[in-house]
Amino acid sequence: MERVFDIELKELRDRLVYMSQVAEKMINLSICGLVERNKELAGQVFECEQEVNKLHIEVDELCIRLLALRQPIAADLRLITAAMKINNELERIGDQSVNISENTAIYLEYPPLKPLIDIPRMVEITKEMVIDSITSFVNEDVGLARFVLKRDDEVDNLRNQIFHELLTYMLSDATTIQRALCIILVSRNIERIADHATNICEDVVFLTLGKDIRHHAEKS
Amino acid sequence: MERVFDIELKELRDRLVYMSQVAEKMINLSICGLVERNKELAGQVFECEQEVNKLHIEVDELCIRLLALRQPIAADLRLITAAMKINNELERIGDQSVNISENTAIYLEYPPLKPLIDIPRMVEITKEMVIDSITSFVNEDVGLARFVLKRDDEVDNLRNQIFHELLTYMLSDATTIQRALCIILVSRNIERIADHATNICEDVVFLTLGKDIRHHAEKS
Repeated sequence: MERVFDIELKELRDRLVYMSQVAEKMINLSICGLVERNKELAGQVFECEQEVNKLHIEVDELCIRLLALRQPIAADLRLITAAMKINNELERIGDQSVNISENTAIYLEYPPLKPLIDIPRMVEITKEMVIDSITSFVNEDVGLARFVLKRDDEVDNLRNQIFHELLTYMLSDATTIQRALCIILVSRNIERIADHATNICEDVVFLTLGKDIRHHAEKS
Repeated sequence: MERVFDIELKELRDRLVYMSQVAEKMINLSICGLVERNKELAGQVFECEQEVNKLHIEVDELCIRLLALRQPIAADLRLITAAMKINNELERIGDQSVNISENTAIYLEYPPLKPLIDIPRMVEITKEMVIDSITSFVNEDVGLARFVLKRDDEVDNLRNQIFHELLTYMLSDATTIQRALCIILVSRNIERIADHATNICEDVVFLTLGKDIRHHAEKS
């Protein structure tokens, strides 16, 4: 027989999945605004931010309530503390999408900078990391979590590559400086989103194995 | 008579205070490396990072242990969940100091960019915010927490001012581009540290009043 508590834990997981979907929508909208030079999309990003912020508070309240009422131990306790952390990471993914929209707004004041270089590729990988991190949480899938952790290097490499290409632009043509700066800042926002996905995956490993792999604690 | 649990909670607070002191030292060292053009200090920042990472894992373990063994409710429960969040913020303040050192390392490859503009002033305010945020946590001082929250605008204004001054440099003299970019990124790192201090203060308000003021929930 299913415990009432299990239903509550399922509700908690469902809230986080929904929150991750809104966060993913925010990434899509903010990048779409940049790629398609569409200023209007920023408004939708800000609307989604309200939704994510509401969920952030609700999930926190739910976690505190479950800790107080159900007095969980072992795996249940780890699930709730992981949920509290993942909740924070998702909220910050939303924040970074807002930052992308803000940097895009400045970018769009200028004529297009020819290619957006590897930004779309960087976003694709980052979005996959976010989705996989939440899937690994829901299924308590350590293998998938570790796969996401490995991909962070790809994102960091793309960030460096983008930085150097844009620097070359700026050095060879001063009229590109403002625009190139905006794209450098956007690439940092995307990098931060990928970092949040890896934080989620570290929480998933702890949740599942009861083992803290942050700061390479596994190696020590 | 003091409960054993009260002694454990005091130990938890003490760990976080110590962790904040190491994080503050990291801010000092990383900025000192920038201002005094001293490459050697980065090594000390990386050493402190090891210490902060160790504390990060220890504090988390302590919190989970207290949740499992003491089954706290109400104010005690809020204290432990706040501690878990503050622990994360402090660890990320450490990360940002490492980022400052990394950006400084590139900056130091070039001759000095005349003034560091308002970077020292921005750091001073940010450091005060970090120290005050932890003091507000230890003393459960909502007034101090709210004072810190208000100061975030000062930091954001300085960030914008620094950005525009550096942009002017870059536009008027292309040989400053790389160096100016490094300082722009450092100013973003400092801004993030101030954000972490405000996150701590929001946790302190929730801890003390049982009221969530994040996302301006107070107004709604």
